[in-house]
Amino acid sequence: MALTETEKDWRFRLHEIIYESNTRAGKAFDVGLLIAIFTSIIVVMLDSVESLHHRYGSLFNYLEWAYSILFTIEYILRLMSIKRPISYVISPLGIIDLVALIPSYLSILFVGAQSLLVFRALRLLRVFRIFKLSRFLTEIDFLTIAIKGSLRKISIFLLTVLALTVILGSIMYLVEKRENGFTNIPESIYWAIVTITTVGYGDISPVTPMGKLLASVVMLIGYAIIAVPTGILTHDLAMAAKQRKELPESCPNCGREGHDGDATFCKFCGSALL
Amino acid sequence: MALTETEKDWRFRLHEIIYESNTRAGKAFDVGLLIAIFTSIIVVMLDSVESLHHRYGSLFNYLEWAYSILFTIEYILRLMSIKRPISYVISPLGIIDLVALIPSYLSILFVGAQSLLVFRALRLLRVFRIFKLSRFLTEIDFLTIAIKGSLRKISIFLLTVLALTVILGSIMYLVEKRENGFTNIPESIYWAIVTITTVGYGDISPVTPMGKLLASVVMLIGYAIIAVPTGILTHDLAMAAKQRKELPESCPNCGREGHDGDATFCKFCGSALL
Amino acid sequence: MALTETEKDWRFRLHEIIYESNTRAGKAFDVGLLIAIFTSIIVVMLDSVESLHHRYGSLFNYLEWAYSILFTIEYILRLMSIKRPISYVISPLGIIDLVALIPSYLSILFVGAQSLLVFRALRLLRVFRIFKLSRFLTEIDFLTIAIKGSLRKISIFLLTVLALTVILGSIMYLVEKRENGFTNIPESIYWAIVTITTVGYGDISPVTPMGKLLASVVMLIGYAIIAVPTGILTHDLAMAAKQRKELPESCPNCGREGHDGDATFCKFCGSALL
Amino acid sequence: MALTETEKDWRFRLHEIIYESNTRAGKAFDVGLLIAIFTSIIVVMLDSVESLHHRYGSLFNYLEWAYSILFTIEYILRLMSIKRPISYVISPLGIIDLVALIPSYLSILFVGAQSLLVFRALRLLRVFRIFKLSRFLTEIDFLTIAIKGSLRKISIFLLTVLALTVILGSIMYLVEKRENGFTNIPESIYWAIVTITTVGYGDISPVTPMGKLLASVVMLIGYAIIAVPTGILTHDLAMAAKQRKELPESCPNCGREGHDGDATFCKFCGSALL
Repeated sequence: MALTETEKDWRFRLHEIIYESNTRAGKAFDVGLLIAIFTSIIVVMLDSVESLHHRYGSLFNYLEWAYSILFTIEYILRLMSIKRPISYVISPLGIIDLVALIPSYLSILFVGAQSLLVFRALRLLRVFRIFKLSRFLTEIDFLTIAIKGSLRKISIFLLTVLALTVILGSIMYLVEKRENGFTNIPESIYWAIVTITTVGYGDISPVTPMGKLLASVVMLIGYAIIAVPTGILTHDLAMAAKQRKELPESCPNCGREGHDGDATFCKFCGSALL
Repeated sequence: MALTETEKDWRFRLHEIIYESNTRAGKAFDVGLLIAIFTSIIVVMLDSVESLHHRYGSLFNYLEWAYSILFTIEYILRLMSIKRPISYVISPLGIIDLVALIPSYLSILFVGAQSLLVFRALRLLRVFRIFKLSRFLTEIDFLTIAIKGSLRKISIFLLTVLALTVILGSIMYLVEKRENGFTNIPESIYWAIVTITTVGYGDISPVTPMGKLLASVVMLIGYAIIAVPTGILTHDLAMAAKQRKELPESCPNCGREGHDGDATFCKFCGSALL
Repeated sequence: MALTETEKDWRFRLHEIIYESNTRAGKAFDVGLLIAIFTSIIVVMLDSVESLHHRYGSLFNYLEWAYSILFTIEYILRLMSIKRPISYVISPLGIIDLVALIPSYLSILFVGAQSLLVFRALRLLRVFRIFKLSRFLTEIDFLTIAIKGSLRKISIFLLTVLALTVILGSIMYLVEKRENGFTNIPESIYWAIVTITTVGYGDISPVTPMGKLLASVVMLIGYAIIAVPTGILTHDLAMAAKQRKELPESCPNCGREGHDGDATFCKFCGSALL
Repeated sequence: MALTETEKDWRFRLHEIIYESNTRAGKAFDVGLLIAIFTSIIVVMLDSVESLHHRYGSLFNYLEWAYSILFTIEYILRLMSIKRPISYVISPLGIIDLVALIPSYLSILFVGAQSLLVFRALRLLRVFRIFKLSRFLTEIDFLTIAIKGSLRKISIFLLTVLALTVILGSIMYLVEKRENGFTNIPESIYWAIVTITTVGYGDISPVTPMGKLLASVVMLIGYAIIAVPTGILTHDLAMAAKQRKELPESCPNCGREGHDGDATFCKFCGSALL
């Protein structure tokens, strides 16, 4: 069935409002949505406070349902205003949107499912869509590229740290015995992670002199190796900055510099850039 | 009414002493003021210690009033020695100065307002005025520029960390139950912040194996992402340093390099720099 | 005794599977071994949990022995498939492999030696062999070079930190007395390490005002000097990157740049690079 | 009185052994001294452990006196082998050496002065004298220059952090009341330092929701501003490295590069460098 002109227009306009944010209506929609998400999370938060739940429980319940219906309508509109709805459903944002909806309806069937409403917090990540279209675009893109490049190296670093904590935690389990809080190896590994990351809750801490000596070694290791991810990222930021700048640095014809990273022609004389 | 010569002179000299610190008297005034602010804070601090309050309470009270009167006189002099007093009143330093004065007079009306005297600590930031006029000028200015440039990016980073803590804290609330200290979602988010920043008070800490596993993930995230603000600032410092140096890099006439950042003419041939 | 062709082939193929991982079989062997090591550690971990030990103790015992026999066979195969087995035995990986085997057999003679099975975790470091042969090769090598270069400087840094903690811990022992948890100097040094690395368990913490003042100094020192290892590593990464890049920078014949770090001939004109 | 040749030789040789470490005897003396300092500190440490003091108290006492006499002899020899002893006495190392000696003799007059023996730990810093003469010389010098350059900027940073903790601690004192551990303003400032440096003992921690909110802000500030000293030092290391390299970069005659930082003449053609 072919769409009439009006239908086309209507769908196009809806798409522009919901998916884009370079129009006034689109930006208003995005900001409004973020406020709705933010306030709905506040309601879930406040509802989790026992004293407030006793007093305003039914009000919170009404509000949660109001938000649920609002977000359901938004989800349906999103499906309607796009050509291939399935591409939205299976996109990361689409999955988050769905995951944030389900708990509301689950709570009819199961008691306690309401707590899962906190998954709405994931939708807060939408805030970056607004940033994306502001003038910070290049800066954030640049950061994202550097962080992505570092991610692999930092993952290897975290893996090494994890292997270290397994070994150090296990040794600690042998040194400090069960009666000192190191009740089993997983617990000791948990202690090693708490210590090497310099968090240091103090819920488990060494008691014997030997244990304290080993713990000191773990702490100093953790204190020194924090340099590794920082060094990697700083280095990758510098590399990314260099690459961005090196590409079309000067025009081969007029020699003038200062072209944008994505420029193909010289903005001064119009000849093709490298 | 026109000012007589003497009046003009008198006001000009007062302005020089109070607002500038490049004269001997101006510097002495600034240093004296800082000492007064510092000692007045010490008095407020000591007065908050119960045992000292019982013994020297009335002495502290006299001193606090003496400081209050001193600072009031200083505030009036500041208003008098400037052409448009309103511009000082609404300036950041002016607001701080006023906020630091009000509690003294509020304490006549309300019991307990005296504790607000600690806002005087904000006046300590005046210490940077002295630095400003010393030879550290360029260094601090340079740092300030880089930090300002990073501020926006670091804010986005902090926002992401906050979103992360909302999500992780909420999940933790579902994993660990009320009986383990995670009494409600805001409390759990507080725990997530304590953990991801590697502070780790230990007032709330996971008890269940599942909770400890999740906590380990939070800690490792916090340990790894500390690299981000550091990387950003280090990179921006390098950029700022480069920009400072690049401006008048080579003389357009003789081509020689090595000019100071504030040079306007070439120090080798005297022709105007870019 | 000369080896027959078949024997030679058989040994060569075994060597290829066990020591190399650029063939399909070699990679499968490496991955399989890692899974075996990983699951065997999980078994040791679970066995250390008292409640699980009571229920599945004998199953865990069987599994541990199965893994021990498996790893013994692997060790024997490693010895057989190499020309000079002694070079493997005294290599770091060989020592780790042996250390990981011994506890199994020790546990027949001594009760409790089983806990030493956790040393198998050391074998997890084999995971880097797989990375080594993937395309991350240069990146990790590059990182390793920079970290090795920094290691000496960071060791000096850690030595200074240790000297600092000895001095600060000792002073703290004099300031806070035995009754406040600082029972002796080694204990106080342990506290200083916990504090300067910003771990902060809180198992020992200052009680007197003077002690809290000193502790504040220690904390601020620890907070500020974390910059040193990070600065060193970041700097060394930049140096290593520069060196890598500087080598065959431009072709001596055509002068064009952008050659890979491992290039021997110019990719534009074919003349030999420096 | 003129010195005879033998006396001159004897004094010269003693000076060489005690103050220099480029001869075999000089190095042996330095290493021996470090071992003596190190073991003497171990004795003081062990003596502070109550159970060991009860058993080996008199042995430790003998050892401490033996070390004291040894170090006194060393101090006298140092005074004798130098032309102007006063220049050694007022040098930093000389003051440390004297401060490390005094407690031994004080303990005759005052009970408890023995604990001050721990000041000997300060002498451990002598370890750097040995490093100095090894091939790490340039590296450490380079590091020291960069750290010294950063010191001023990092001091300003620490000053700002301190001002922040005074303000934040004071506000926290108003928010959380005495009954929650924030008994007075100095105590609250101590808490703010514990929190902003991410140490987090947990001996004092916020109880009210408002206090936890404020604490979260303090933690996030501390987590973000750690970037500042790191960024400064990394930047200064890069600057120092650049300066070292820039000086005699290329020969003005033959143009070849790669001269050492301390070169005065070109190592290729012998003409004077800039």
